[in-house]
Amino acid sequence: MREEWSNAEKKTARRAFETAREAVLAGAFAEFKAKAAAARTVDDMWSIGDALQQLRRDIDELLDYRYSQLTPVFARLIVGGYLDEKQLAGLSEDKLEKIRRHVSFMREP
Amino acid sequence: MREEWSNAEKKTARRAFETAREAVLAGAFAEFKAKAAAARTVDDMWSIGDALQQLRRDIDELLDYRYSQLTPVFARLIVGGYLDEKQLAGLSEDKLEKIRRHVSFMREP
Repeated sequence: MREEWSNAEKKTARRAFETAREAVLAGAFAEFKAKAAAARTVDDMWSIGDALQQLRRDIDELLDYRYSQLTPVFARLIVGGYLDEKQLAGLSEDKLEKIRRHVSFMREP
Repeated sequence: MREEWSNAEKKTARRAFETAREAVLAGAFAEFKAKAAAARTVDDMWSIGDALQQLRRDIDELLDYRYSQLTPVFARLIVGGYLDEKQLAGLSEDKLEKIRRHVSFMREP
């Protein structure tokens, strides 16, 4: 069943997404700086290069702003610690419930 | 015409190549460290990732230890400042002459 997103929900979603996006990128950047500062060998350098390629793919996959993908995307951002459910206040209860189900599923041991 | 490499020449070539290889990698590593330390934004980080990919391709191309490729390779290493012709003492005069011709050609304005 296709989800409907009201304009108010789209606005909330966009704001939450952008906040999480900045947190993801800030975390990635801080990790890069620490790894680069700790690099001692040419192999460390190549590893950082490989990690950056992988990171770009992971981030592109994680930060997928299609309405059809947003509930699992928000769940992954919550599980990753980049987003708090409170920032999604304003979304319909059925969307929040979907997000919570994804989160529970991902958090299961 | 196929070049012949005597065992003594191969030994000289290998020693010179390894010295130059270390210089290339040390230079690349120092440049990486400086760029990473200067990085201030996520875009800087992605640029460094792209540069590392390109660097790996360039280095693989530059450090090509096939006897059929060694005279142009040594010439490029000399032009790049990674090798001094003195380190090639022991190679036959015709090989040294070939290397010098490559160097002159690359250095032409």
